[in-house]
Amino acid sequence: MNGSYRAIWLTESETLEVIDQRTLPHRYDTMELRNTDETVYAIKEMVVRGAGTIGCVAAFGIYLAAQQSQGNREALKVFAAQIRESRPTAVNLMWAVDRMMAALKQSDDLIADARRAAIAIVDEESERTQKIGRHGADLIENLYKHHGHKTINLLTHCNAGWLAVVNDGTALAPVYEAQRRGVDIHVWVDETRPRNQGASLTAWELEQAGIAHTIIADNTGGHLMQHGMVDLVITGADRVTRQGDAANKIGTYLKALAADANHVPFYVALPASTFDFSIKDGVKEIEIEERSEDEVHFMHGLLDDGTTGRVRVTPEYSTALNIGFDVTPNHLITGLITERGVCEASLEAVETMFEDLL
Amino acid sequence: MNGSYRAIWLTESETLEVIDQRTLPHRYDTMELRNTDETVYAIKEMVVRGAGTIGCVAAFGIYLAAQQSQGNREALKVFAAQIRESRPTAVNLMWAVDRMMAALKQSDDLIADARRAAIAIVDEESERTQKIGRHGADLIENLYKHHGHKTINLLTHCNAGWLAVVNDGTALAPVYEAQRRGVDIHVWVDETRPRNQGASLTAWELEQAGIAHTIIADNTGGHLMQHGMVDLVITGADRVTRQGDAANKIGTYLKALAADANHVPFYVALPASTFDFSIKDGVKEIEIEERSEDEVHFMHGLLDDGTTGRVRVTPEYSTALNIGFDVTPNHLITGLITERGVCEASLEAVETMFEDLL
Repeated sequence: MNGSYRAIWLTESETLEVIDQRTLPHRYDTMELRNTDETVYAIKEMVVRGAGTIGCVAAFGIYLAAQQSQGNREALKVFAAQIRESRPTAVNLMWAVDRMMAALKQSDDLIADARRAAIAIVDEESERTQKIGRHGADLIENLYKHHGHKTINLLTHCNAGWLAVVNDGTALAPVYEAQRRGVDIHVWVDETRPRNQGASLTAWELEQAGIAHTIIADNTGGHLMQHGMVDLVITGADRVTRQGDAANKIGTYLKALAADANHVPFYVALPASTFDFSIKDGVKEIEIEERSEDEVHFMHGLLDDGTTGRVRVTPEYSTALNIGFDVTPNHLITGLITERGVCEASLEAVETMFEDLL
Repeated sequence: MNGSYRAIWLTESETLEVIDQRTLPHRYDTMELRNTDETVYAIKEMVVRGAGTIGCVAAFGIYLAAQQSQGNREALKVFAAQIRESRPTAVNLMWAVDRMMAALKQSDDLIADARRAAIAIVDEESERTQKIGRHGADLIENLYKHHGHKTINLLTHCNAGWLAVVNDGTALAPVYEAQRRGVDIHVWVDETRPRNQGASLTAWELEQAGIAHTIIADNTGGHLMQHGMVDLVITGADRVTRQGDAANKIGTYLKALAADANHVPFYVALPASTFDFSIKDGVKEIEIEERSEDEVHFMHGLLDDGTTGRVRVTPEYSTALNIGFDVTPNHLITGLITERGVCEASLEAVETMFEDLL
């Protein structure tokens, strides 16, 4: 593994190096993670974010924890619990930790086996994103042909590119693949307040890949859809229930409502690891993370003097509420783009396509 | 007139002084307008904003232009045209300029008559907001009684308070009046990107008035409504058609969709001067202002050193699109709160209530 188009990689000294996603697009920094505390910090403070990337960091976090606990299984369990609890909505985090611990259950060599298991998770994740890319690109290509090869305008929310999910992303994997197939594509990038993952990370990724894109305030998508300026929406997801309700970055639900009202296809792209088959009703059952209100009060970016800094955008004594995710009910979702193909967002369809995983 | 709870006032030297709404809430500055150029600048650059305030500034702008043209009617017409074109979506602007020019048609003393006519417009506007406040507060009070005197949670988008419309605002007039009547009310304040009129102006107004409020990212309202955390929505409007379609700050439409999907009453508050009876279909017929993309790229606020400044939040080479308004179709609007009472958002109801103005 190396740094090119990967959000995380192992160093020669067997630590984990990650791109610090907090300072992009203005500064490219990396951070070295060496133990559980640093892994939890990186996940909680969103040095790394995105469903898949969080899962992979958690998997390697277990490897770092195995080194740290020097083969002591009880110590490893304590570290694993800390990592598992670092962000409540991300199901890939729990999935990765659980899968790592299961792989180590019978292990005689915790460190070597953790290393192997983590690498396997990342490699499988990477393969899955390529498949998601192909299935999603088929949809985009069909639209492109149907529209007489006019530019396809795709809207996305937050960042579900290669920074979010190794190696091609989920929502953006179809975009990258469509570009490779020669489809003329343009992406509307939702800014994605309060953390601005769209304006910073998605725009940065697309610029690096030479894909035409335009950043818009989160408020804008409804107007664009109302005026026929959006051909389809693809977002990622942080947790999808057995009946196809999708938790994703706050604001996704509003775009799904607008897509529904204006007959714009609305897809959610995810690897099977993002399903939480244990629950059905996402609105009622998914725990939604509440984050620090300072993320609303302060905006980070590039100051006029070329350094990075922040401005406070709210009155000194006003309070803010910062809810991290919302849930889009299945009836607003045209389809789930998975590594196995496009699946209808319904209990029956999900249970049929993923029967072996239930 | 004076500065307390008024966004604009005449000075002793017969110029117009306005609160500079660009630096609030971090700095309270005023700007003196002395001629047409300065009036156009103040409207275009959003030193002043809000449907009603723009109209009043335009009215006084004609007074300043009358001084400037020294009684020359042809010169005044040129100035009037410049003011009229300073922002394309705001119908109050055109209404105020047209009404001023009509009042001056037979005038022998352009300057004195312009002064009188402008003051009349402001005084009437102020009276209308009080009536809007009473009609809206009746709705809120009924909900409050119906809910067993539990806190009423009202969501608003952008700023339609006294900064936007002299003297009590439109969307916020019912809030101020409900507070005076002893209703326990809490306001969810949409940040309102890209210009942040919610996070800066509405929050500042509510804090000054001692009204409980919480700032949220624009992405959040859907989730709140889905979870029963919003009892009603009231927004202002920049232009409302004969059939009740409402142009308002970009993002309003998304909240209306969420309100509709979750059975939350959605009201638009406006004085009759905000109607454009000449058009019916707002989505098709209202010209929507596109503003500088820099408003998306840069966020202004308070730097850590206590001065005001800005950060760039997007990559250097990414482009942005900045659409100022969107249109909420009448079927998503529960009612229009006007100075004459609450009117159904339909052609028939509007034509009946405002027959004398058609």
